[in-house]
Amino acid sequence: MSSSPTIYYGPVFNPETLTSYKALPSCLFSVGPSGNIDWIVDDVAEHMLQETLAQKGCIDVNVTTLKTGEFFVPGFIDTHTHASQFPNLGSGQQYELPDWLNHVTFPTESKFSDLDFARRTYESVVRRVIDGGTTTCCYYATLHLEATKILVDIVQANGKSQRAFVGKCNMNRESPDYYRECSVEASVTDTKQLITYIRSLHAATNSNSSYPLVQPILTPRFAISCTPELLTSLGELAVQDPALHIQTHISENKSEIAYTKTLFPQAPHYAGVYDSFGLLRSNTVLAHAVHLEAPEIELIAQRGAGISHCPTSNFNLSSGVAPIGVYLDRGIKVGLGTDVSGGFSPSILNCVQNASIASKIVAMQCQHKNNVEKPQFAGRQLSVATLFYLATLGGAQVCDMDKQVGSFAPGKSFDALLVNLRNDAGNPGIWSLESDADVRGTGVLDGLLERFLFCGDDRNISRVYVQGRFVGGKSFRA
Amino acid sequence: MSSSPTIYYGPVFNPETLTSYKALPSCLFSVGPSGNIDWIVDDVAEHMLQETLAQKGCIDVNVTTLKTGEFFVPGFIDTHTHASQFPNLGSGQQYELPDWLNHVTFPTESKFSDLDFARRTYESVVRRVIDGGTTTCCYYATLHLEATKILVDIVQANGKSQRAFVGKCNMNRESPDYYRECSVEASVTDTKQLITYIRSLHAATNSNSSYPLVQPILTPRFAISCTPELLTSLGELAVQDPALHIQTHISENKSEIAYTKTLFPQAPHYAGVYDSFGLLRSNTVLAHAVHLEAPEIELIAQRGAGISHCPTSNFNLSSGVAPIGVYLDRGIKVGLGTDVSGGFSPSILNCVQNASIASKIVAMQCQHKNNVEKPQFAGRQLSVATLFYLATLGGAQVCDMDKQVGSFAPGKSFDALLVNLRNDAGNPGIWSLESDADVRGTGVLDGLLERFLFCGDDRNISRVYVQGRFVGGKSFRA
Repeated sequence: MSSSPTIYYGPVFNPETLTSYKALPSCLFSVGPSGNIDWIVDDVAEHMLQETLAQKGCIDVNVTTLKTGEFFVPGFIDTHTHASQFPNLGSGQQYELPDWLNHVTFPTESKFSDLDFARRTYESVVRRVIDGGTTTCCYYATLHLEATKILVDIVQANGKSQRAFVGKCNMNRESPDYYRECSVEASVTDTKQLITYIRSLHAATNSNSSYPLVQPILTPRFAISCTPELLTSLGELAVQDPALHIQTHISENKSEIAYTKTLFPQAPHYAGVYDSFGLLRSNTVLAHAVHLEAPEIELIAQRGAGISHCPTSNFNLSSGVAPIGVYLDRGIKVGLGTDVSGGFSPSILNCVQNASIASKIVAMQCQHKNNVEKPQFAGRQLSVATLFYLATLGGAQVCDMDKQVGSFAPGKSFDALLVNLRNDAGNPGIWSLESDADVRGTGVLDGLLERFLFCGDDRNISRVYVQGRFVGGKSFRA
Repeated sequence: MSSSPTIYYGPVFNPETLTSYKALPSCLFSVGPSGNIDWIVDDVAEHMLQETLAQKGCIDVNVTTLKTGEFFVPGFIDTHTHASQFPNLGSGQQYELPDWLNHVTFPTESKFSDLDFARRTYESVVRRVIDGGTTTCCYYATLHLEATKILVDIVQANGKSQRAFVGKCNMNRESPDYYRECSVEASVTDTKQLITYIRSLHAATNSNSSYPLVQPILTPRFAISCTPELLTSLGELAVQDPALHIQTHISENKSEIAYTKTLFPQAPHYAGVYDSFGLLRSNTVLAHAVHLEAPEIELIAQRGAGISHCPTSNFNLSSGVAPIGVYLDRGIKVGLGTDVSGGFSPSILNCVQNASIASKIVAMQCQHKNNVEKPQFAGRQLSVATLFYLATLGGAQVCDMDKQVGSFAPGKSFDALLVNLRNDAGNPGIWSLESDADVRGTGVLDGLLERFLFCGDDRNISRVYVQGRFVGGKSFRA
């Protein structure tokens, strides 16, 4: 790693709030040797470039200037995906959740007892996820400790790869014999071993960053798959380790919800199950949340847990349409999740498009209530600004790391995508603006972000940076 | 063009009915010099290959054998798109139809008075559409005669390019002054000139096919944009020319429908407007049909007109969710339309995915009616077989040319896609099956079609054939 900072100059989109982002045509910023952003000047005219650099104490420095049609956005954050289900991408769309688990998911996940298969699969998975623009990813692996360590190794890649949370599934009931943990003790022991393994890797890495790239995450698969005894043990683990992140599924499918209630008759609702075991807190990621009841929305808000909105999966498995606007109005943290392979795409761009569609469906269904005064988000379509926020800073909040990633600010990690919307990117689905005149007009820069979010694919992601390092993208593969 | 037939051997998916397709792992077929399919043998074991060829009178012939991970499907049919709106792909998703037309569409369409702009734009459009796997396309151009001729020239490409219908918009009211035809006479004269131009091109081409590649299509933009006088004239044109195809929009947006009723107070409903002018017949393509009333569904069925289902656009412009199952149950012909740029993708694959999502939304909304006996399609999710059918043979029916294209059969045109699902296709969103063992297992071939439809993109479309000619795809660009 270089010991001098890297200076970038060009268009930047920077999320600010749920309803606003900065579109900066001429942004100048510096990324230090640690991979953190040193400083940002939002708007520097070309003739003021050297003077501005001098004011920042940068004399005789190289400036990486973006080309026409290029811009930076913060790296995408995928708050929910299953690394072990990528081989099933685009399979089983005829099923709803329970049948899909038994016919599609569990058979494939069980194959990860084969460590060669695990290595081969996870190497391809992580490469795809990074090149798709996901700089931080919340991964579910399988129930296998050793295979999950392999996933950790691949993600970690000696501290030079992706930022991620990696969890081994806890699941000791309600799945087939061939794919179920045999005891609470084994499940908990393996989980502790994985946590120790991941943390020791960071300690062993001579990283300049005080933040680890890969972090452990407690992963009770979902309430159905865990006995109360297992949840009790995992809750104890969580209490002893407040920094330990937690991920699970909640309220995805109506029959899943009904069955959960029969398994936990004392709990007031689905969220109450997790809460009763101490698993609902500010670093908990709750995937789906399609059919939450009002009291559990309130409980999740109070606990500060985050929701991973997985619209592609929710459509594909006929789970329902999550009322994201309601959650946003209540101040709940929301990010996006691809939920491969419930979702048929590993790309957060696809997720953005389907989050937009989901919100429009909700809005259309609410149209007859036009006379009622609506709150800010509920019953409305999500704007480009909101979608952009969910894909970046919202996801960072859900991961409880918005102080570190999700937007560009001095002191934050430089996790970023260099986007290229020119024709030479090779994506025929995006109409390029090639000339300076095309892209410098009033309002045109805003339009570029919308084009990227709705028409872009991995070919438009030229370079992917994590903690300042160039780790993926189309130029990386070339 | 070669004077000897081309023999292909490998996996083929061939649509049969709305609920079935043939998955043929070892299909052998011959395409003659005219570009029509000579014969097909569904299943030929490798050791029987020479014997089968000999029986067909083919001695010492080259056989093009597909590689592992490759298969043929019929070319996609896009029954509704606007060639003139591609520059707006991924723009204006905040609007519904009326505002979107005024703020996004009309300003861009008006630019096609500049013939250089038209040529530059249409060349790129047609290349993108072919490479995306659309072998037959129903194009709307603009109101400009000369620019539309340019589109025809590009599509025609001396008889070696795409199969298409090209229409000049008729629109003499309810759009801004800068983009409206000045008189009924001018609109009709230009329309007649375009029809003559397109037909003369085919006559001038030394095509071996008796079918023209490019055909004219009468294109009254929609009822709102045409005065009764204009519709009367167009109806007369249609009556004199029963072979002339017709395309228009119907019942896309609720406020559009309401306004249409005020403009045509005598008509019983929206479909009745077109019918009263003689514009509703078996070669009429009706785009959208989101909110049809029962009597107009009946009228459309009786007239034998087809519906172009444009789910991406219907979501994106918050138009609604078309009840496609109802139309299929009534026996109405249905195909898919990308409706660029109401839709944000020019790919029929994206359309397939969103048609699936649309049907699942309808099915979820009907779940409470579970006790009622459901018909075959209404209120149910569309299967892979149905989606595949809509993208191919259903589209051919809507274009009233299912005798010629849409599936593989002796005597039909060889309009086809050579699909490549291997990793070397370069699409990270599709999980490849690389080995023979991977793809030869029971049921695996079926899975490949689903993967392609849900995860594929233009990179998986290796070669595009129209009338037997290799005209596009990834290998064409390489």
